Amino acid sequence: MRDLLPNEANQMRYIEQTARRIAQLYGYREVITPTIESYELLAAKSGEEIRQRMYAFSDLGGRRVALRPEFTASIARLVATTLRSEPKPLKLFCVGSLYRYDEPQYGRYREFWQADYELIGSGRPEADAEILLLTHDLLKRLGLRNYHFKIGHMGILRGILSQEGVPEEQQNRMMQLLDKKRWEEALHLAHALHVSERGISTLRGIFEAKGDDTDQVLQKIHQTVKGYESALEALENLREILHLVMDSQVGLKIWLEAGFARGLEYYTGMIFEVYVPEMNIALGGGGRYDHLLELFGGEPTPAVGVAPGIDRIMLAMQRQNVPTKALEGQERRVVVIPVREELRARALELSMRLREHGIPTEVELMGRTVSRSLSDADRRGIAYAVILGPEELREGKVVLRDLGERRQAAVRIVDVPTEILKGWRPPSES
Amino acid sequence: MRDLLPNEANQMRYIEQTARRIAQLYGYREVITPTIESYELLAAKSGEEIRQRMYAFSDLGGRRVALRPEFTASIARLVATTLRSEPKPLKLFCVGSLYRYDEPQYGRYREFWQADYELIGSGRPEADAEILLLTHDLLKRLGLRNYHFKIGHMGILRGILSQEGVPEEQQNRMMQLLDKKRWEEALHLAHALHVSERGISTLRGIFEAKGDDTDQVLQKIHQTVKGYESALEALENLREILHLVMDSQVGLKIWLEAGFARGLEYYTGMIFEVYVPEMNIALGGGGRYDHLLELFGGEPTPAVGVAPGIDRIMLAMQRQNVPTKALEGQERRVVVIPVREELRARALELSMRLREHGIPTEVELMGRTVSRSLSDADRRGIAYAVILGPEELREGKVVLRDLGERRQAAVRIVDVPTEILKGWRPPSES
Repeated sequence: MRDLLPNEANQMRYIEQTARRIAQLYGYREVITPTIESYELLAAKSGEEIRQRMYAFSDLGGRRVALRPEFTASIARLVATTLRSEPKPLKLFCVGSLYRYDEPQYGRYREFWQADYELIGSGRPEADAEILLLTHDLLKRLGLRNYHFKIGHMGILRGILSQEGVPEEQQNRMMQLLDKKRWEEALHLAHALHVSERGISTLRGIFEAKGDDTDQVLQKIHQTVKGYESALEALENLREILHLVMDSQVGLKIWLEAGFARGLEYYTGMIFEVYVPEMNIALGGGGRYDHLLELFGGEPTPAVGVAPGIDRIMLAMQRQNVPTKALEGQERRVVVIPVREELRARALELSMRLREHGIPTEVELMGRTVSRSLSDADRRGIAYAVILGPEELREGKVVLRDLGERRQAAVRIVDVPTEILKGWRPPSES
Repeated sequence: MRDLLPNEANQMRYIEQTARRIAQLYGYREVITPTIESYELLAAKSGEEIRQRMYAFSDLGGRRVALRPEFTASIARLVATTLRSEPKPLKLFCVGSLYRYDEPQYGRYREFWQADYELIGSGRPEADAEILLLTHDLLKRLGLRNYHFKIGHMGILRGILSQEGVPEEQQNRMMQLLDKKRWEEALHLAHALHVSERGISTLRGIFEAKGDDTDQVLQKIHQTVKGYESALEALENLREILHLVMDSQVGLKIWLEAGFARGLEYYTGMIFEVYVPEMNIALGGGGRYDHLLELFGGEPTPAVGVAPGIDRIMLAMQRQNVPTKALEGQERRVVVIPVREELRARALELSMRLREHGIPTEVELMGRTVSRSLSDADRRGIAYAVILGPEELREGKVVLRDLGERRQAAVRIVDVPTEILKGWRPPSES
């Protein structure tokens, strides 16, 4: 667990706001689901590894609960219940913190932040393509460079294994090994599970089918999976998704890898992760999960989604020295300093007026002398000081000081907000 | 625990964003502290009632932890450690969800949202006044009406009890009773704790000193606490704070109540809560806590803060029928519909271009016919449809349809974004 200090907190909020803006631009509506959900719900299809690392406990009412390790299970619950009769496609967005008891390491935190986009109700390849393009759009808008999409398809791997008679639970074990790139162990496991010699050699071929020449890799997969019918269908689906993305001319960089699997068990189709060259952990990932909603009692409903990792995007921006665009409120700041104790209420009153004009304004709150207050404001990069003294006030004026120029002049109180908004400069001393 | 659906989620985010904007305008920098903290830290000064209602558990490493029930303890930890050498005043903001295992009831949720503003390092009355004014500013900006500030001062109550020799722990018990408005029980407890007859009658007088005529109530308290030195000092401090607020001319509505206490044990000075007439639960509250930082190993540091409750502000806005101003992205929306499957990539491409211009754009993702897609878009209040057909595309054009007017015209693709941004209307049919 860690604290985010102001600079990092601002960057975090900037990424969150950009993710929310992308949701608005693509028509994904925001929902906020609880941080604490029933353990059963969260454990249902998350995969063994995540199950073991959940923050699970019993609440004061004796219910077994856990802190959510990801958003998709909660969204699936919502779509299968409250939002059951919403027209499809249903496009939902959420953002917040998630929890996994991992060993702390680079880019991996026990409390981490993700955005999440879920496109529910369309099984068509243009839906998969939209999720890929949306992810690209988010990273591009944030100013990241040279990121690439690692793409695979669960239907190819599961198609081969199913035709070889491997039951689902054993398939999941295999996927966990592939997720960890333990290819040889996966082949041993296939052997132990009585996969045929032809099956083993097909799997070996699949594990070798990868590269950035998409058409070439697709062709290689095609040659490899001949005779495995549902794997061939999955391949055709993958080809359609990739061509939609490539033909839409946005210049997505793709690394296709047929033996790529992800830790979550609920994926059924296209899966992907995004990487930058500077880091060997994914900035985010997602894929298609066509059967998860049934699990929560919903109608069979195809769905595809992505969860960009906000902490990791933040690290990538830092590694690539991408400047965080300022959030609102980075305008020139003002401090209001009363010369005497009796003028504190006037100082508070004037500061409220300035803020009404959208000017970030602080008031001297430590009872310091004008000169100490000015040097503190100067050190903190504040642009103007408004000094309230009894003589000027009698004429309806205050002293306005440009802290950069170190010069000042008396200005009518009523003119102060507009002068500051216009970027007031003190008259020259001549 | 509950889900916030899109309308409520938008309202939540709107309040959060307004709270963040207030932080920027007043110079409070945002920090993000962990949701899970050590139980010891959170329990230290939170008060018996909150302690019993914390979500406490042991993590996988065997550490006793809890979900934070409030922000102040985390902020105090941060200020006493990482931010120890920051110059004062240090002004911090945070916002997020908090957890208490309460019985669910109106306006009270087990996961609830708060903003939090902490002003650290100033013990002066203008600091207390700023916190009150800032809270007022937030509620006013959100459009709430008729809210009032219920204000008290822990120094008056504790001043009397200390001089009567009541130890701190027993004082805390008394404060819990006052927090629940159990005045008679509080007087019985005072009796049992050997408070003198004069002390009892002073307390009784204090409990009766309340009203919206601030000066009159201040005078009544003054008469009542005569002879209790530190209570008189506290009263003087309260008078100064109130006069600063009233003289700053912002029209704060105040209900002064000398026997008012809050559940949290760490308050030492002025305390307050905000109410609207439509609800009998506070929208937020805060106060001065001058000794909390020492508890976490920091220097003795005066501090004052406020935690506006976002859920409760949302309820108040609903009760007062305050319209939620739209977040960004409520502009006129567009749907792009390809007439044929082969044009899907072109549809994706054009949608990306529109979004680059800041136009919220969806693409037909269900493979529906143009007429079904149009009627769906119409139902959802989408403003324009861009229909891609092979004939128009050959001329570099698309069909742009105004869904309100139910009329359309062919428009050059390159002109589509600017036409939509200009509020395109189809040419009249004549």
